[in-house]
Amino acid sequence: MEAPQNQKNILLTLSYDGTNFCGWQKQTREGTETFRTVQGELEKALAKIHKHPIETNGSGRTDSGVHAARQAVNFFSDIKSMTASNFLPALNSILPRDIRVMEAAEVSPLLHARFNALSRTYRYKIKCGKTIFAHEQPYTWHIRRYPDICSLNEMASCLSGELDCTAFSAAGDQSLSKSRYIKKAVFFIENDYLIFEIRANAFLWKMVRSIVGTLLHLEEIGASKKDFKDILESRVREKAGPTAPPHGLFLWAIEYPKDLLKPPQKTF
Amino acid sequence: MEAPQNQKNILLTLSYDGTNFCGWQKQTREGTETFRTVQGELEKALAKIHKHPIETNGSGRTDSGVHAARQAVNFFSDIKSMTASNFLPALNSILPRDIRVMEAAEVSPLLHARFNALSRTYRYKIKCGKTIFAHEQPYTWHIRRYPDICSLNEMASCLSGELDCTAFSAAGDQSLSKSRYIKKAVFFIENDYLIFEIRANAFLWKMVRSIVGTLLHLEEIGASKKDFKDILESRVREKAGPTAPPHGLFLWAIEYPKDLLKPPQKTF
Repeated sequence: MEAPQNQKNILLTLSYDGTNFCGWQKQTREGTETFRTVQGELEKALAKIHKHPIETNGSGRTDSGVHAARQAVNFFSDIKSMTASNFLPALNSILPRDIRVMEAAEVSPLLHARFNALSRTYRYKIKCGKTIFAHEQPYTWHIRRYPDICSLNEMASCLSGELDCTAFSAAGDQSLSKSRYIKKAVFFIENDYLIFEIRANAFLWKMVRSIVGTLLHLEEIGASKKDFKDILESRVREKAGPTAPPHGLFLWAIEYPKDLLKPPQKTF
Repeated sequence: MEAPQNQKNILLTLSYDGTNFCGWQKQTREGTETFRTVQGELEKALAKIHKHPIETNGSGRTDSGVHAARQAVNFFSDIKSMTASNFLPALNSILPRDIRVMEAAEVSPLLHARFNALSRTYRYKIKCGKTIFAHEQPYTWHIRRYPDICSLNEMASCLSGELDCTAFSAAGDQSLSKSRYIKKAVFFIENDYLIFEIRANAFLWKMVRSIVGTLLHLEEIGASKKDFKDILESRVREKAGPTAPPHGLFLWAIEYPKDLLKPPQKTF
């Protein structure tokens, strides 16, 4: 994909609170009825700045209720007078407060936020204990017990390398291949939260939440690493555990090849 | 104040997300029109459990948009079959999700959440830097610059002991005396946030937010400890700085005399 002539390719890093969105992807029903989506709100703001419609490419969809710390989105801009960094304050002054632009940079005209992403990282946030602060609740899965992190990590160690992830796919997933390359999958404690961080080239629909729900369920019933491996290798979704709720999940980071992150060299 | 006979005095520790509340205190206008308040929702839930109205005493009011990590509230219950700890799950299953009961304990019949509080602690949460995550925004004051914490703490060191706090009171404050005993006032960094923690026997209306706004303003213009002291001693609100926004403020903890926290001894 090439940039249209005389247009800048802008890469945005977006944070959003997914609570009041029907996910990332814009939705139109019969051309008129629309749902509130992050992409929809972003394109509305960009159209206001550009005075014509702007198409955006997100690194991937996030589901209804899922948050993002650093979603990556690119679009082409024909406004000569605006530098990439101008888009940060301009967009943040127009966007609703549950979407924030964290970074804005001009990148190679060849970069496409979805097709060129090397990896996606997700974090799933869990609070263990009797109760949870009201202000933590929209962003955390609250469980009453304290799971054994060693046991969780022993099972999670199976999630490494090229794997057929059918067992953790959702019924409606339309991916042709269910194979994904997992680069990292680990539980750790940070600021009193139990965090699960997972990085892969890409993910199936609801895959992270299925993995988290399954791991926590297996740990609770005292299952072993072998039990988890059996589920994974069965490639049968029904053998896996419940799907963890969306509000604990954050799209955490997107990685691109370094040379695509460089703006084009000016020719004189 | 004495407990009505055969009733238990229950002390609740409440967390709430103040975003969608018109503050703590219940409000009725001409008997019918009501605003959504934390006390209003809590009393509705308690009335449902008790099947008759229940009056609650909060340790103090919090303003519209201000959060609480551990507000303290007491009420008298005549339900013999319920222990204090039963109120935690019972209330949390009825209350809206932006109010959570963190603790429930039977205490001395003499304890009144407002009149017996030895101290109130507030925390004010600030995020410094170019941008802020969308999910932090409802609970954090975002400022772009990085203030000098040493300079802030030098000024804050004036806030110690018995002080006339008129300079930090709001126009509508109806307290007879503007004198408050400040036990702690300090800035520190915690998990990438700049936190201001202040503890006093009690506070005037909007006092914490006036202090935070004034300290940050003085630090920004390079004022000295003496400048802050002059404002404090002037007892003139107009000499102080702006009021910091409500959404960074958390009622953090309430302290009671230890003997009032004990349940009454059973007599046979």
